[in-house]
Amino acid sequence: GYAKIDHHRGLRNGNSEVIYCPGKSLDQITAIFQVLAEKSQNVIATRASRKAYIKIKERIPEAEYFETARIIALWRDKVQTEGIVGVVSAGTADMRVAEEASVTAELMGSRVQRIYDVGVAGIHRLLSNKQLLDSCRVLIVVAGMEGALASVVGGLVSKPIVAVPTDIGYGANFKGVAPLLSMLNSCASGIGVVNINNGFGAGILAHRINLIGEMHENTLS
Amino acid sequence: GYAKIDHHRGLRNGNSEVIYCPGKSLDQITAIFQVLAEKSQNVIATRASRKAYIKIKERIPEAEYFETARIIALWRDKVQTEGIVGVVSAGTADMRVAEEASVTAELMGSRVQRIYDVGVAGIHRLLSNKQLLDSCRVLIVVAGMEGALASVVGGLVSKPIVAVPTDIGYGANFKGVAPLLSMLNSCASGIGVVNINNGFGAGILAHRINLIGEMHENTLS
Amino acid sequence: GYAKIDHHRGLRNGNSEVIYCPGKSLDQITAIFQVLAEKSQNVIATRASRKAYIKIKERIPEAEYFETARIIALWRDKVQTEGIVGVVSAGTADMRVAEEASVTAELMGSRVQRIYDVGVAGIHRLLSNKQLLDSCRVLIVVAGMEGALASVVGGLVSKPIVAVPTDIGYGANFKGVAPLLSMLNSCASGIGVVNINNGFGAGILAHRINLIGEMHENTLS
Amino acid sequence: GYAKIDHHRGLRNGNSEVIYCPGKSLDQITAIFQVLAEKSQNVIATRASRKAYIKIKERIPEAEYFETARIIALWRDKVQTEGIVGVVSAGTADMRVAEEASVTAELMGSRVQRIYDVGVAGIHRLLSNKQLLDSCRVLIVVAGMEGALASVVGGLVSKPIVAVPTDIGYGANFKGVAPLLSMLNSCASGIGVVNINNGFGAGILAHRINLIGEMHENTLS
Amino acid sequence: GYAKIDHHRGLRNGNSEVIYCPGKSLDQITAIFQVLAEKSQNVIATRASRKAYIKIKERIPEAEYFETARIIALWRDKVQTEGIVGVVSAGTADMRVAEEASVTAELMGSRVQRIYDVGVAGIHRLLSNKQLLDSCRVLIVVAGMEGALASVVGGLVSKPIVAVPTDIGYGANFKGVAPLLSMLNSCASGIGVVNINNGFGAGILAHRINLIGEMHENTLS
Amino acid sequence: GYAKIDHHRGLRNGNSEVIYCPGKSLDQITAIFQVLAEKSQNVIATRASRKAYIKIKERIPEAEYFETARIIALWRDKVQTEGIVGVVSAGTADMRVAEEASVTAELMGSRVQRIYDVGVAGIHRLLSNKQLLDSCRVLIVVAGMEGALASVVGGLVSKPIVAVPTDIGYGANFKGVAPLLSMLNSCASGIGVVNINNGFGAGILAHRINLIGEMHENTLS
Amino acid sequence: GYAKIDHHRGLRNGNSEVIYCPGKSLDQITAIFQVLAEKSQNVIATRASRKAYIKIKERIPEAEYFETARIIALWRDKVQTEGIVGVVSAGTADMRVAEEASVTAELMGSRVQRIYDVGVAGIHRLLSNKQLLDSCRVLIVVAGMEGALASVVGGLVSKPIVAVPTDIGYGANFKGVAPLLSMLNSCASGIGVVNINNGFGAGILAHRINLIGEMHENTLS
Amino acid sequence: GYAKIDHHRGLRNGNSEVIYCPGKSLDQITAIFQVLAEKSQNVIATRASRKAYIKIKERIPEAEYFETARIIALWRDKVQTEGIVGVVSAGTADMRVAEEASVTAELMGSRVQRIYDVGVAGIHRLLSNKQLLDSCRVLIVVAGMEGALASVVGGLVSKPIVAVPTDIGYGANFKGVAPLLSMLNSCASGIGVVNINNGFGAGILAHRINLIGEMHENTLS
Ligand SMILES: Nc1ncnc2c1ncn2[C@@H]1O[C@H](COP(=O)(O)O)[C@@H](O)[C@H]1O
Ligand SMILES: Nc1ncnc2c1ncn2[C@@H]1O[C@H](COP(=O)(O)O)[C@@H](O)[C@H]1O
Ligand SMILES: Nc1ncnc2c1ncn2[C@@H]1O[C@H](COP(=O)(O)O)[C@@H](O)[C@H]1O
Ligand SMILES: Nc1ncnc2c1ncn2[C@@H]1O[C@H](COP(=O)(O)O)[C@@H](O)[C@H]1O
Ligand SMILES: [Mg+2]
Ligand SMILES: [Mg+2]
Ligand SMILES: [Mg+2]
Ligand SMILES: [Mg+2]
Ligand SMILES: [Mg+2]
Ligand SMILES: [Mg+2]
Ligand SMILES: [Mg+2]
Ligand SMILES: [Mg+2]
Repeated sequence: GYAKIDHHRGLRNGNSEVIYCPGKSLDQITAIFQVLAEKSQNVIATRASRKAYIKIKERIPEAEYFETARIIALWRDKVQTEGIVGVVSAGTADMRVAEEASVTAELMGSRVQRIYDVGVAGIHRLLSNKQLLDSCRVLIVVAGMEGALASVVGGLVSKPIVAVPTDIGYGANFKGVAPLLSMLNSCASGIGVVNINNGFGAGILAHRINLIGEMHENTLS
Repeated sequence: GYAKIDHHRGLRNGNSEVIYCPGKSLDQITAIFQVLAEKSQNVIATRASRKAYIKIKERIPEAEYFETARIIALWRDKVQTEGIVGVVSAGTADMRVAEEASVTAELMGSRVQRIYDVGVAGIHRLLSNKQLLDSCRVLIVVAGMEGALASVVGGLVSKPIVAVPTDIGYGANFKGVAPLLSMLNSCASGIGVVNINNGFGAGILAHRINLIGEMHENTLS
Repeated sequence: GYAKIDHHRGLRNGNSEVIYCPGKSLDQITAIFQVLAEKSQNVIATRASRKAYIKIKERIPEAEYFETARIIALWRDKVQTEGIVGVVSAGTADMRVAEEASVTAELMGSRVQRIYDVGVAGIHRLLSNKQLLDSCRVLIVVAGMEGALASVVGGLVSKPIVAVPTDIGYGANFKGVAPLLSMLNSCASGIGVVNINNGFGAGILAHRINLIGEMHENTLS
Repeated sequence: GYAKIDHHRGLRNGNSEVIYCPGKSLDQITAIFQVLAEKSQNVIATRASRKAYIKIKERIPEAEYFETARIIALWRDKVQTEGIVGVVSAGTADMRVAEEASVTAELMGSRVQRIYDVGVAGIHRLLSNKQLLDSCRVLIVVAGMEGALASVVGGLVSKPIVAVPTDIGYGANFKGVAPLLSMLNSCASGIGVVNINNGFGAGILAHRINLIGEMHENTLS
Repeated sequence: GYAKIDHHRGLRNGNSEVIYCPGKSLDQITAIFQVLAEKSQNVIATRASRKAYIKIKERIPEAEYFETARIIALWRDKVQTEGIVGVVSAGTADMRVAEEASVTAELMGSRVQRIYDVGVAGIHRLLSNKQLLDSCRVLIVVAGMEGALASVVGGLVSKPIVAVPTDIGYGANFKGVAPLLSMLNSCASGIGVVNINNGFGAGILAHRINLIGEMHENTLS
Repeated sequence: GYAKIDHHRGLRNGNSEVIYCPGKSLDQITAIFQVLAEKSQNVIATRASRKAYIKIKERIPEAEYFETARIIALWRDKVQTEGIVGVVSAGTADMRVAEEASVTAELMGSRVQRIYDVGVAGIHRLLSNKQLLDSCRVLIVVAGMEGALASVVGGLVSKPIVAVPTDIGYGANFKGVAPLLSMLNSCASGIGVVNINNGFGAGILAHRINLIGEMHENTLS
Repeated sequence: GYAKIDHHRGLRNGNSEVIYCPGKSLDQITAIFQVLAEKSQNVIATRASRKAYIKIKERIPEAEYFETARIIALWRDKVQTEGIVGVVSAGTADMRVAEEASVTAELMGSRVQRIYDVGVAGIHRLLSNKQLLDSCRVLIVVAGMEGALASVVGGLVSKPIVAVPTDIGYGANFKGVAPLLSMLNSCASGIGVVNINNGFGAGILAHRINLIGEMHENTLS
Repeated sequence: GYAKIDHHRGLRNGNSEVIYCPGKSLDQITAIFQVLAEKSQNVIATRASRKAYIKIKERIPEAEYFETARIIALWRDKVQTEGIVGVVSAGTADMRVAEEASVTAELMGSRVQRIYDVGVAGIHRLLSNKQLLDSCRVLIVVAGMEGALASVVGGLVSKPIVAVPTDIGYGANFKGVAPLLSMLNSCASGIGVVNINNGFGAGILAHRINLIGEMHENTLS
């Protein structure tokens, strides 16, 4: 059920402090994690190395590590939405960012459907997933290179779409600027864009959109 | 009531063809509008001048003009959501884009709450509207200059936010690039950004998010 | 037949001087056109206004005007290739550039198949033209906004593709930079990109590629 | 002969999956290579280190390594076109990219003529190769620094040209942006540009153009 | 008291040579420091590592090291202003730059009030410090990400503000360009901006502004 | 005297609403001006045409127009500081921005010393004004082209400097970006930069800095 | 002879004040011209319209107008160097800038050899002018589009070269940025670059270089 | 004397092949150096490490190393001009580039006058060197940060000036873009700019300008 939703809405709304690891030492990450673990039910550290996880696990054994997503999480109260957040990604190289989005949304409580490796260079992979796309309440589209995937998905469905450009590519890709511009200029309407590689932010936003469906359900029942 | 929602979902989902007027002659705009008015219930032309409206009205008397939003609309079946789309804007100069977003969402069927002229240079104007912000299901934040409003609103509420940078400013504003970057880098999570001045796209996206609450209501009742 | 191909290969190879009209006065354009018309079989002026055409026609009655393509041409020896240059375009606003490409290739002697208004926002328009795409020897893809069309076409066929970004769009489109980057970073291989709005250059390049098929035919027969 | 061309056209058209090595571990590269080697006649890995090659060779002894091109290839059916792809390059520092283009086109089945180290600082080196340039069906021009070579070659021949900017240079070169812009703005017509350092993409495109001559040959004989 | 201010105004006005360490070897830094320590009362080295400090301390035992600020200082005559320089910063990641500003101003002789970790994502942290802000004569605002803090502080007080963008962020942050543009375009007036990460320059400027109040005091008393 | 300074500190601190005219119609400007004139002692409109002034003057005869500064002002209580704001400018073309700064500071109540047309191409013009520079409490430096003037002035004095880049120049000036970068990177310390052409903002900031000297005077006497 | 060279070296060294007309009214230009004509032997106004010339001529009948160069000049003492400044340009559209350079150098006293319309698209036009290039002491190379001409000329001669990028081009030319970068990155050594369209500055610099030969001649004879 | 100038003009004109070391292995550098040392009198390698020098010296004992300039040179015929190339630099951090320019010009045969560490932050250091500046035939100005030094030197002398921006700076310096733009936009005329850090190119160009004075001397005597 969804009964506990009002008790711990802090983190599930994406309001909590989250540790962004780059530029912090292992000691700093561990210390901050421990402090947060004491005052809060749920804690997240993003862009975290396995090394940081090992150090944290020594002190907080319930902490989990999501390798590809590079997320360390301590998640004590687990709930799950009815509605589904679909996470669509283009190539295998985009998977780290896609997983950051998926794991973030899942931790917050969203049911997540992964639809990976469906880049537009082979458009039929995407078309054959049309039904899966339609079963989601909101979609996250993760793509590097030229980021065309967001437009194509936007042309197939009328869901709210959260687009995440990645820095996969080289040369005139300019570390993600090419797909960022592509997504901002999409000929399909209804696409909100987050920063390059910001799978975390996309996960939060999609979860909040997803919650709108859940909340009404609650109100009525 | 919301009974008719399944009958005319085309345009209300933001899937319909919409006329973008810049670069088209008055004759072209009028002709395209007429063709669309015959095959479709509802038609929108954006960035439209009053002149274009007068010419269209001669042939389609029900057409309406929204001056500040610069939108010509022919809207035959009117519905209204329970949920509210809040449209927050910074300065008077941003009002054209804010109105483009508001009118778009309203035409699609969303109830809209305008919260204009609450820029961060006078932060208390925004703080005193906290309750109004909380009454909305999703927020559109429209701001030019440095676009700080999106971050401040994002810090006040846990709603999904659609941020629209405008090209208001000069010099190192680079026609909206400054607020665009600002919004993409917001220290507040849960913000999806659309193209500079794209009030229309923001209106579509916010309406689609808003619909998620309505649909569930329908499913259940 | 293709018998005359060796006699007039100059212009058909795209080597001739072509008049680029912007920044030149009507008098200058007319004078240059006349000089070239005397020493050369075929003359082209690009980005030309109807006014320039009227002035030129007074002196050179055989001159033709291609309104949408904005091309004035004096074309005395007409030939036609077996192979087809396909010109695919996204939106109606891209048509001027698409026509510049089509008319250029046609004047050079290429048979041209126009496949317009098949943007990715409605992907099925493009998919239903798959057979037409397959019947071409080389494809020109013209697109503004985010330029995703080039990648999608590149995913559908294995032909050489010449991609032309247009400056259709606003804000973070940066006058065609967004689709330019998109096309340069395409996840589909085999795409050569020309300058923003350079329909003329695309027409020349596609024609030269198309000629490769013709030349062999000649060599053998 | 060219008899087998219809049997294995997949990879030779440049449609096959190719492994792009940067960002992948040695283990990942080896694993993907092995999977592809089982389901496909021919496999390519680009931007590959010698280390990766040694690991792959242990399991797939027929794999070859092209040191300068940084390509690992397993190529089981070898064919060769009549037509020639010319690969022209400016300086010794551009050779890695030029070789990526040459080896890619050769693996696909194109006969390749290398014309290296003919930069415009010593223009006569290029002029004395005019006949060689004329013997090719399509040219790839690889240049860093200011990329002027593409324009000069474009002024000498009427072949289709695929231009590849490289990131050779410093300061206001901006990692290949200077030659990229140079090539997009070339005063010579008929030049299609690929991404910075994208020798692989240039090889595919040139091969596809080259094939047009071969295919007709087949049709007729 | 402030009696000695006229005797040693050189360094306290920020006119002295300061050692900028990046790109210099430990030996060079030590040598330059020693030379300056002989001819001048006070010496500063910025962006200095602990290693450099240890080496300098061996020869000049009075030298101090400010770890977070990365400043090595030899400060022989200590004075303190009546007026306060407030240093406001957004996140913990901005602290190195904030400390560079604080320590610089303090060494010059300014009384400094640190108001750290009051980013706009939690606006009430800032609002609850309003009184502290009001007690300062001049404010330094240090912020990365989108740099909105400068505008919000500028909307709360009428003090001169020195804004320092930091390079904290990723993707479309472009190493501090996003907050730099944000601060230059602030909708609040009265903000002077220094280079990205330039805590040192901000400290100097704020100290000079602060001195204006002191000097008058001196003149009159 | 300075007695009234506490009574009307609003506008003199630069906190008041100021009308920015570009993008507003004559009617809008006049209407806003009148509203502000009723509720406030002092009103300013910047970037204002003479036409706007004539229309305003019809209704508010005390309104003044500053032609070069393009400022319309209604200023009812006039005070003047002891301290001097020096406004230094490079070329005659920079004078509009310099005057915007000077007039703004003067209206706020600062005594202003203009030192115009002392660009670095003739360095002795600047050196011969050293004494004048020294007599000021704070300096505004206005320069276009390459903006070197800010660095040279910064090397001559130890005052707080507010630097204003202008868009005077062409080509690689990029409408003021060249002097903006120049000023942000100045080798002289103690320079705070405002937006391109933002004479108004510089006037406010310099006035606030200047006030620091006045306030102390008040406190003590 | 060259006897008078020491008497009037001011303007001939390029030190004099020159009027840059854009942004000045006809009245302003005329007034400044008259003032300078009284205190100086020689006066130049650049980027000047024919209208400005007609107005000036009414008062100063000896004033001359150079239509293509857009220069108004009053030149009272005419001398001529032995050495030759060669001015090489690419296309007819570059001629305005080339003439600005040529006329500037000529007015200063340099003998000028124009070598126009020798762009690299037809490289033999340039090669057949090799002897003319060799007869010059210093060369100015003016080119828009991709600016390859500078590199090709630099490869042919060992003279000092002053390169002037022009804004001729469109799209990814970015108003002269493409040839500017091209020239700065030239693979040929010995090229000094001036601002986009700055024919005037190139004329001054080339003249000063040319003078070096003259001066020695004087010293010795 | 200068008698041998016609015999070995190749390298002294700056036409010879020079080895640019970055991106080449020690073995490659050594091999190329040896080949060139056999066929040419004089050889240069730039951006060379001491390690490369040691390896080359083993085989070619006459090779010299210029530590700060990072140049390895084999220079067999030494001549010296009458005229002087002045090399002016701003800060100690710019010295590597300044030395690259000085050593290059010296090797070519130019007499060089170094005027280092005269940045504009202390303008009197530069002014007190006015006589030295006047004794040179041509000046090279090397500066990073905001590059103002070029303009100030340009305002003091009427010599041809070659300006070299360096990448010294951080943040909005953008690795030398700030001084590059500064130098291109200089308000002083007669400045030719080379690429960021291109001391070598500046040395060649200044030497060629210097030679103009020498050659005449030869012609006459
Ligand atoms: N050197 C290269 N440059 C550009 N694209 C490449 C290169 N090598 C491989 N690719 C493309 O990258 C894709 C493979 O990426 P991945 O699956 O990440 O190995 C293929 O579709 C290729 O077309
Ligand atoms: N952290 C810093 N940020 C900006 N400028 C600095 C910094 N530290 C020192 N400087 C300036 O750099 C100059 C010293 O550079 P250097 O001679 O290379 O050590 C001084 O003039 C200082 O004003
Ligand atoms: N010339 C100017 N430059 C920068 N900001 C200005 C200028 N004039 C007015 N402003 C600001 O613009 C705002 C007024 O904008 P508006 O309400 O559109 O008239 C005020 O808050 C002023 O601080
Ligand atoms: N066409 C031009 N391009 C670049 N600089 C110029 C040009 N014409 C004049 N100048 C410079 O502009 C200054 C005159 O500017 P002004 O006083 O505004 O007329 C002189 O110092 C000239 O060196
Ligand atoms: Mg859609
Ligand atoms: Mg929030
Ligand atoms: Mg394909
Ligand atoms: Mg050609
Ligand atoms: Mg304020
Ligand atoms: Mg100073
Ligand atoms: Mg040369
Ligand atoms: Mg000078």
